[in-house]
Amino acid sequence: MFLKKIIDSIADVGKSLLTKTFSGKRTVEALLELSDDLISYKGIASGIAIARELSVTYQALTLEDKKLFFQAIDKKLKPNMDLVEQKAVEFIKHKSKEHLKSLATLAEGGRQEFIRRLNMAPNGTAFLVSMREDLLRCIETDPSLQDLDDDFKHLFRSWFNPGFLKLEKITWDTKAAILERIIKYEKVHKIKDMDDLKRRLQEDRRFFAYFHPVLQDEPLIFVQVAFTQGLATSIQDIIKPGVGTAVKADTATFYSISNCQQGLTSVTLGNFLIKRVVYEIQQENPKIKNFGTLSPLPGFADWFNSLNDQGIINIIGAEDFSKIKFLHNAQIKVGDPRIAEHKKIIKKIAIHYLIKEKVNHKPINSVTRFHLGNGASIEDVTINANISDYGYQESFGVMVNYIYHLDKLEKTHEDFINQHKISYSDKIKKYV
Amino acid sequence: MFLKKIIDSIADVGKSLLTKTFSGKRTVEALLELSDDLISYKGIASGIAIARELSVTYQALTLEDKKLFFQAIDKKLKPNMDLVEQKAVEFIKHKSKEHLKSLATLAEGGRQEFIRRLNMAPNGTAFLVSMREDLLRCIETDPSLQDLDDDFKHLFRSWFNPGFLKLEKITWDTKAAILERIIKYEKVHKIKDMDDLKRRLQEDRRFFAYFHPVLQDEPLIFVQVAFTQGLATSIQDIIKPGVGTAVKADTATFYSISNCQQGLTSVTLGNFLIKRVVYEIQQENPKIKNFGTLSPLPGFADWFNSLNDQGIINIIGAEDFSKIKFLHNAQIKVGDPRIAEHKKIIKKIAIHYLIKEKVNHKPINSVTRFHLGNGASIEDVTINANISDYGYQESFGVMVNYIYHLDKLEKTHEDFINQHKISYSDKIKKYV
Amino acid sequence: MFLKKIIDSIADVGKSLLTKTFSGKRTVEALLELSDDLISYKGIASGIAIARELSVTYQALTLEDKKLFFQAIDKKLKPNMDLVEQKAVEFIKHKSKEHLKSLATLAEGGRQEFIRRLNMAPNGTAFLVSMREDLLRCIETDPSLQDLDDDFKHLFRSWFNPGFLKLEKITWDTKAAILERIIKYEKVHKIKDMDDLKRRLQEDRRFFAYFHPVLQDEPLIFVQVAFTQGLATSIQDIIKPGVGTAVKADTATFYSISNCQQGLTSVTLGNFLIKRVVYEIQQENPKIKNFGTLSPLPGFADWFNSLNDQGIINIIGAEDFSKIKFLHNAQIKVGDPRIAEHKKIIKKIAIHYLIKEKVNHKPINSVTRFHLGNGASIEDVTINANISDYGYQESFGVMVNYIYHLDKLEKTHEDFINQHKISYSDKIKKYV
Amino acid sequence: MFLKKIIDSIADVGKSLLTKTFSGKRTVEALLELSDDLISYKGIASGIAIARELSVTYQALTLEDKKLFFQAIDKKLKPNMDLVEQKAVEFIKHKSKEHLKSLATLAEGGRQEFIRRLNMAPNGTAFLVSMREDLLRCIETDPSLQDLDDDFKHLFRSWFNPGFLKLEKITWDTKAAILERIIKYEKVHKIKDMDDLKRRLQEDRRFFAYFHPVLQDEPLIFVQVAFTQGLATSIQDIIKPGVGTAVKADTATFYSISNCQQGLTSVTLGNFLIKRVVYEIQQENPKIKNFGTLSPLPGFADWFNSLNDQGIINIIGAEDFSKIKFLHNAQIKVGDPRIAEHKKIIKKIAIHYLIKEKVNHKPINSVTRFHLGNGASIEDVTINANISDYGYQESFGVMVNYIYHLDKLEKTHEDFINQHKISYSDKIKKYV
Repeated sequence: MFLKKIIDSIADVGKSLLTKTFSGKRTVEALLELSDDLISYKGIASGIAIARELSVTYQALTLEDKKLFFQAIDKKLKPNMDLVEQKAVEFIKHKSKEHLKSLATLAEGGRQEFIRRLNMAPNGTAFLVSMREDLLRCIETDPSLQDLDDDFKHLFRSWFNPGFLKLEKITWDTKAAILERIIKYEKVHKIKDMDDLKRRLQEDRRFFAYFHPVLQDEPLIFVQVAFTQGLATSIQDIIKPGVGTAVKADTATFYSISNCQQGLTSVTLGNFLIKRVVYEIQQENPKIKNFGTLSPLPGFADWFNSLNDQGIINIIGAEDFSKIKFLHNAQIKVGDPRIAEHKKIIKKIAIHYLIKEKVNHKPINSVTRFHLGNGASIEDVTINANISDYGYQESFGVMVNYIYHLDKLEKTHEDFINQHKISYSDKIKKYV
Repeated sequence: MFLKKIIDSIADVGKSLLTKTFSGKRTVEALLELSDDLISYKGIASGIAIARELSVTYQALTLEDKKLFFQAIDKKLKPNMDLVEQKAVEFIKHKSKEHLKSLATLAEGGRQEFIRRLNMAPNGTAFLVSMREDLLRCIETDPSLQDLDDDFKHLFRSWFNPGFLKLEKITWDTKAAILERIIKYEKVHKIKDMDDLKRRLQEDRRFFAYFHPVLQDEPLIFVQVAFTQGLATSIQDIIKPGVGTAVKADTATFYSISNCQQGLTSVTLGNFLIKRVVYEIQQENPKIKNFGTLSPLPGFADWFNSLNDQGIINIIGAEDFSKIKFLHNAQIKVGDPRIAEHKKIIKKIAIHYLIKEKVNHKPINSVTRFHLGNGASIEDVTINANISDYGYQESFGVMVNYIYHLDKLEKTHEDFINQHKISYSDKIKKYV
Repeated sequence: MFLKKIIDSIADVGKSLLTKTFSGKRTVEALLELSDDLISYKGIASGIAIARELSVTYQALTLEDKKLFFQAIDKKLKPNMDLVEQKAVEFIKHKSKEHLKSLATLAEGGRQEFIRRLNMAPNGTAFLVSMREDLLRCIETDPSLQDLDDDFKHLFRSWFNPGFLKLEKITWDTKAAILERIIKYEKVHKIKDMDDLKRRLQEDRRFFAYFHPVLQDEPLIFVQVAFTQGLATSIQDIIKPGVGTAVKADTATFYSISNCQQGLTSVTLGNFLIKRVVYEIQQENPKIKNFGTLSPLPGFADWFNSLNDQGIINIIGAEDFSKIKFLHNAQIKVGDPRIAEHKKIIKKIAIHYLIKEKVNHKPINSVTRFHLGNGASIEDVTINANISDYGYQESFGVMVNYIYHLDKLEKTHEDFINQHKISYSDKIKKYV
Repeated sequence: MFLKKIIDSIADVGKSLLTKTFSGKRTVEALLELSDDLISYKGIASGIAIARELSVTYQALTLEDKKLFFQAIDKKLKPNMDLVEQKAVEFIKHKSKEHLKSLATLAEGGRQEFIRRLNMAPNGTAFLVSMREDLLRCIETDPSLQDLDDDFKHLFRSWFNPGFLKLEKITWDTKAAILERIIKYEKVHKIKDMDDLKRRLQEDRRFFAYFHPVLQDEPLIFVQVAFTQGLATSIQDIIKPGVGTAVKADTATFYSISNCQQGLTSVTLGNFLIKRVVYEIQQENPKIKNFGTLSPLPGFADWFNSLNDQGIINIIGAEDFSKIKFLHNAQIKVGDPRIAEHKKIIKKIAIHYLIKEKVNHKPINSVTRFHLGNGASIEDVTINANISDYGYQESFGVMVNYIYHLDKLEKTHEDFINQHKISYSDKIKKYV
């Protein structure tokens, strides 16, 4: 994890102002003692020094000890039920603003203020992002820590508000240290090495990342765009080696969007990033008129394989099922010619999965929910759009084009939220 | 106000993504309609566009209309007493975490989330700082808006946390646009023009400011330091024209600290700034061993003049009073020789004012409270330290040296907070 | 002189590599000894160290000693007439390339190589510019040093070739240290202070300077432009306080061009700067269609006063002379109404001076020669264009508009150079 | 070649000022016509435009056409022998300064001024470096062009004077575009890819390059350094993958120095770079006390194989020769154990080659000449220091440590230049 290194090398700001002799012990107890100091009046006078010492102590612990620390701090700083009750009773009695404030303060508890004070440490924000990364791992074995994480999430949403982020264009003039991280963080369509990345930074490609001003050189999220004639329909065409020119392009195909920081899970930035990048591209390239995606369909193969024969027949009928039975719970080689042969049937299933399979009235597929939630429409589904082991395993090579009609985004979003209406093109219609 | 200009020139990010036709009317009604949109689900899809339109609409209003807007938004988004009551009743009944969360959410109300969403506008943070500036003026005539301001203050304390600020050294290589603002913002010892400022940036002076990464070129607070032999005892010596060298200096005298942004009132940064600057100076100039201030004593003359004869006699005795009666409720010329002649008596009164006059168990003087609260001690009181109209009017020319003993800051702070103990030097002792 | 300071603070590059113990004496003799070392084979191994020591030693000398140094170095390194003669004889005999090279090398002498090696000193280029400044002063009393200066000029023309210069837009975001120098260097229309300068950096003004990459923060030459409707006709209008907008401007009036470095005298950069700035403005403001100047007419009043009555009568006739006799060798108050009253006659004289008074077949006025040499035309002459003491003293307030017709520059330049043809407008014609 | 790209994308500065309609033909004739214009008085008025057009026209030609152009321009602008003779005769007659100047001017000819004017083109310096690259290739088939190249070299030595260069530390924070070029330019110990390069940028390595301010992102020459305990003796140890720390290092081993630009051949920068980097390292790491190299011994194997048996016997005697006869004109496998077995004999031969084999009284080996010419000593010779195909082929794996004793550099250099004395250590002595 990158943050470790940053913290190891923190400037000794604060150290020189440290008048109290810290124990120097790197234990959960020492950590809790520092936490008490930080949250007390001492935190006001010597906050930076205490927060610094706390962050160093924390780093030295094992994950198991960190969990103990999280549990202890949660216990200590969570809202005190009895006191809240008492304040609730008083509020009901008086219904005054003063009583409301006391009630609200006690109902929030002390965890948020604790996190805010930790942020004073040198590289405090990086430290907190790293701490939440640990916390999320601890929650896997102790779900009761979810409340503590809710407070982290609440603050991070405030601090990583798009108003605070900087959009940067990643190019071959970007420093190698950032490019190296980007290679590491790209999960959707892996980048092998710098040369592979270079292709994605050429004249007919765009690459944008959001940064937070205090997390230098650390991308939070990035998006990759190809300038194409019409929406791209093959991911291999986009990422294959070569030198491109954007001469006749009229369309920006967004082909990858990656969150970089585990510690920022659920702090949604993707929808802002896409809209911001659309704006940048419009300014820079007035010839680009269309904006859409070439997106994966994760979970499609798993869903398909989870159905029994009858389930599939219910969707496409017995005759079609007999033709694509070879797909069902079988090992398919990349490029198996039967895929292309029966592409209409597979498309039909994929569209059913996209549009009809729901959870809480919304599409079951998270990528679909993301783009529809942004106001996009489903434009098309393409067979053999991702001819790779991974693509076949995930979705038999099927990928989806979502389109962002800029003049309809809000209406589409509104209908999706209020009426759970899924917007799709005429090309899709005939398969529904 | 600087923010107006920034906002006028905001990049039209968002504009192009605006699918809804905004009314374009610049009225309180239009503003409230936009606020409704922003706070609704629409704010998620089109937040940047709506926030942008809202900020433009707001700017066009008169202060009177802004007040109407604040009142309306407060009414709409403040916690709903009846609903809170209902949730309080439910909580008391169940005492579950879920009920606690509902209660806490309702008790907070909707104002904070509204402010957070406004921050998405281009230059949103600058806009919000400017909006709070307006709000503070409106509170003067409508104290009920204080609750809305509490929410602003709460968020600003989180957003302007020292962990997010950048310290910058102001020098003659700083851009003129920033220097011009500094001239405007310096309130303690006025800067006439660029030449006057240049003196304060020379080799034997230091000038540091805190900036927030998204408020470019806008200092939030700055501090001015003179390198001296021992603590400086005359403000005129420090700011008089000339070219200085720091050859034999062993002391950093902090002689001015100025908050720049009205909109950040009560978002305390001063104590962090001083400690951070001490650290910077230690790193850069190991020869500087002592850190202290040459500080004004605002309110001293007013307090003195508010006493009646007997009041003064109670402090210094009848004999001394007869000697300095000329000061009492009189017009004193700058440099009146009687001041120097009776400096011991005046010093005695000043020290009494510093140490004995209290409110809530703390010194009545706010500068004193600030430095003691930081862990500093009162080192000395100097007569004729500020030989200017302003200095005489405020405090008969008296100024105070506070000293920051780095190894005792925390203890001093602790004793001050817990036992209301005021720390002072042996030089002061004999006058107490 | 700015260069002194730079040199005082030079990084001690070279010092640590200094193996030879320099005498440390700051005398002409020490300087000449260092010069011998620099020019010898030692200069190759330890050139940076020797050049550094030489520059420090030089700085410590008086101007008188510097002159002795220049004389000695010139004597030592100037071409050896006897050797050149010998090589000339050999060349005539063999007429081979080898003999030509020997001859050329000896005919050049050693001064240029000496200057080139001095350039290795830290801040060597700044040092050499400063040295030439001194040299130009020494030439005033010892014209024989002109040959040494010719070698400086030759190298500086090569080193300050426009291909090496950076054009920078000066704005209110420029660092104060540069703005301060600009105030100092502006000679044409004095800038009182930063506020006065600020006016010239506003929306309807442009300010460009050439910098050399190794002379950081030191402008070499700068030009000031006002965006106007038609060519400006009053310098007071341009520089008066106020806030301007460029809304309806169609013309760029160049109203001041200033060389900054004495040490770069005769290293012509002005014509390149003007053409480069025209290009920048065209790129940035396509609405600006016309490019011209509002230029002073230095020497006009002196020339007029140097004529006797008959001389003037020969130009404008006896009748007109009687009307403007009040001007002749008299003290005229700024704004004297008789100037406006007889503006046609004064215009006639000014145009005669511009076009008919020549030296070496070219206009006697240097500003006129500069603009015509750039390919510009004389567009108009305006009475009371500079209503200031200085303007009246120099030219009775008369100023000149030169116009740069971009499509005719080369032809106009060619005709001016080859046929001494002076290009002027129809407005001028009727006065010729 | 990189320069092509730069030139293709040159800003159209000058284009807009182009009043003359250029033919647009991309022929040698068009080029020569433009050259005539550039060198004439037109070059003063429209120099930038003409130089720009000339550079574009030139780029379009084949190498064969470029050669024709070089030949024609050389013929046209080289010194006119008859005129020089005439001026030589006049000079002999008068021996005046004026006649000397005329003679010198004519003896120089017009090529240098032509090159200086070309430098005005956008990216003119990059263009000229690229042009000289072409010229050097043309000289291979037409040695008469050497004179033209002498003028290029003369100007480049002036323009790429160390006083104009910027030293930059190359790190993982350097932009990828520069790192990519460095990978391409490293010739001594090839860099496979970015990861391979990253190793050379770690904590215990240093990497410095010289840049010229107008050749952005184009390194001119770079040097690679390893921090080691004592001088390194194995190049494979230095460049093998891994993460290093510089904890106990006391020595900086310079293990590679590479010139990047063919077009700067013979414009010596290496000696300045090494001394400058020594200075930087001293400043940054006071613990580093020793400075030396681990250098290749190119040509050693070729020289050895060019001897006949008797020649070798003359050097090491018949007995030793019988032992290392296996080396002579044979294919040796990398790591052949006989190399290590007979290392003393091989060392003896290598030292003979280093010290005794001379041309013009100087060592025959160019790397040896370079370091001794810088004032370094031969410290040691190591067998199997470069265990690679290339290392064995070049020198049977032998490498040389040169040491830079900072306090003796000048003396050593002096003795080497004046007395052809070769400095070596006691370790070497016993083999001589």
